[in-house]
Amino acid sequence: MRRAVALAARGLGSTSPNPVVGCVIHDASGHEVGAGWHQRAGGPHAEIHALRQAGVLARGGTAYVTLEPCNHTGRTGPCAQALIDAGVTRVVYAVGDPNPQATGGADTLRAAGVEVVAGPLADEAERGNAAWLTSVRLGRPHVVWKYAATLDGRVAAQDGTSRWISSPESRADVHRLRAESDAVVVGSGTARADDPHLAVRGIEGAVQPLRVVVDTEATAVRPGARVLDDAAPTLIAVAEDAETALPDVVRLPRADRGLSVPALLAALHERGVRSVLLEGGPALAGSFVAAGAVDRIVGYLAPVLLGAGPAALAAAGITTLTEALRLDVTETVRLGPDLRITATVAPKER
Amino acid sequence: MRRAVALAARGLGSTSPNPVVGCVIHDASGHEVGAGWHQRAGGPHAEIHALRQAGVLARGGTAYVTLEPCNHTGRTGPCAQALIDAGVTRVVYAVGDPNPQATGGADTLRAAGVEVVAGPLADEAERGNAAWLTSVRLGRPHVVWKYAATLDGRVAAQDGTSRWISSPESRADVHRLRAESDAVVVGSGTARADDPHLAVRGIEGAVQPLRVVVDTEATAVRPGARVLDDAAPTLIAVAEDAETALPDVVRLPRADRGLSVPALLAALHERGVRSVLLEGGPALAGSFVAAGAVDRIVGYLAPVLLGAGPAALAAAGITTLTEALRLDVTETVRLGPDLRITATVAPKER
Repeated sequence: MRRAVALAARGLGSTSPNPVVGCVIHDASGHEVGAGWHQRAGGPHAEIHALRQAGVLARGGTAYVTLEPCNHTGRTGPCAQALIDAGVTRVVYAVGDPNPQATGGADTLRAAGVEVVAGPLADEAERGNAAWLTSVRLGRPHVVWKYAATLDGRVAAQDGTSRWISSPESRADVHRLRAESDAVVVGSGTARADDPHLAVRGIEGAVQPLRVVVDTEATAVRPGARVLDDAAPTLIAVAEDAETALPDVVRLPRADRGLSVPALLAALHERGVRSVLLEGGPALAGSFVAAGAVDRIVGYLAPVLLGAGPAALAAAGITTLTEALRLDVTETVRLGPDLRITATVAPKER
Repeated sequence: MRRAVALAARGLGSTSPNPVVGCVIHDASGHEVGAGWHQRAGGPHAEIHALRQAGVLARGGTAYVTLEPCNHTGRTGPCAQALIDAGVTRVVYAVGDPNPQATGGADTLRAAGVEVVAGPLADEAERGNAAWLTSVRLGRPHVVWKYAATLDGRVAAQDGTSRWISSPESRADVHRLRAESDAVVVGSGTARADDPHLAVRGIEGAVQPLRVVVDTEATAVRPGARVLDDAAPTLIAVAEDAETALPDVVRLPRADRGLSVPALLAALHERGVRSVLLEGGPALAGSFVAAGAVDRIVGYLAPVLLGAGPAALAAAGITTLTEALRLDVTETVRLGPDLRITATVAPKER
């Protein structure tokens, strides 16, 4: 199953709106005879890749799948039936399928006399599929907030200079995060200050994310902005009453500050976006935190002290310590001189 | 030598104004026959402890010492001569003694026909003796700035609440830091807001540090303040022209903001303080950074987001990114839910 989880992760960023899934098939004597992962929406599911490789050797064997095999016919046929047809006699899966359209695969398998085991490595498989599971359960994309700050929490110096707080290693790592995401979101402040490109660079075969700029007043993204080139699709979110001549604009209701975060996420979900990388800045991140719409944070901490300049997070609607958003640190990694801290929002807060 | 470095560390916090030193003696066939460390100023040096344990077995043997054996007679006799008298034929030491009064031990040993090797594990031994080496080289105490902050760099919420941002594990760890320090320093803001006690709790046999409050206007520490109890010695630093009836006051020149940091450190150095734990708050830490008087930072990062509230470091005199204080992360450790990050000021900045 560990191998199946690792295989599943190869699909991150290219399977949306589908989950990532990995599958390994053992023959009756326990030798691996097939392995595969879901590579892109509309393409074969992981089980089908693995069954094709295994051929007749799957008969009497065991399939290890990171997600309960699907039971419905979408663009491809139901995997539960394919496993039965191939003569697999035992199916082990990590996480149950919460999708009401697809669930029931385990029942179908059992009804056909297949032994079904659920649960091994469920936590790991769930983490690997966090984006898709969040989107099914909450009806909105999974949101990772990424920031790069000094040890004293600043994202820029007093005069606004911010290039480069984080190391080349950290900046390269951000491109990996982008490649794993369906959409990359920034606010008008970042668009105005940095004219960011937001596309993935340096990762071969990466699927480019949708570039999203939250530009409430439609004043930050000007014709000629780098985000408007053809390296990746782009969507500008503006207020319903904003005046703009830009193409590819989505109009959203206003909130107390800026645009409604739930409305933005709903609009992205409707477009098939299951995972969002929120790249900045402090005000937009504050709006997301205030809306309860941050699921994971990835902080690149540079071993630098400034003592002045904007903080990484602003105006999140938290006034006292008991209201603070508490997270669980799941990983810390050294990236060159920097530290990368990954933390998830503690379940009780959800 | 690794064992000698570990032995030396047992003296942290109790040897001031002397260095920490560890010593291991092997007999002629390479078996350990003696080990010791410098335990307190005025007591025997590490070599003497180890030689006493080894007795005649030291003859023809090797001494591993973390610091070049001393050559002078202070409150105890010169260790170089003691090693010669014991018949040790080889001395391996990690770090040379920069103290002009004590240096020359290696020459004395060589002149007596002892083989001398310098340098093994020098980096580790130097780190272990950072406080003393800094005080000898710069003529001021070594300064560790300790802070506890959220992932977004806040030390309190918008309404000032700060209990408890960090975990019980982190708070216990701070007592270890205090026990290893000769003095603990806070500013008037912290004294006023928290009425802190600043003594070491929960560590058996700990030598209490000197508690120092930088109270420029002599208005923050009132009679009855917890810092004035008899759990540990206390020193209040006030401006030369401040009016106060408090005992144990040192009067220092003013700086642009607050008191002169170099004058404070000189006053502490004069009192035998070789290591300072700077515990707060943002303004005082900023003054220390601005004065180039922070050698190491220990940050306790709680997996919490606030989005508002004071930042860990303020007013450090840095206005643009190229002026930032750059550090090297030397260690990251999980303490309960928190992360402890240790970083040293990069050598090029010194």
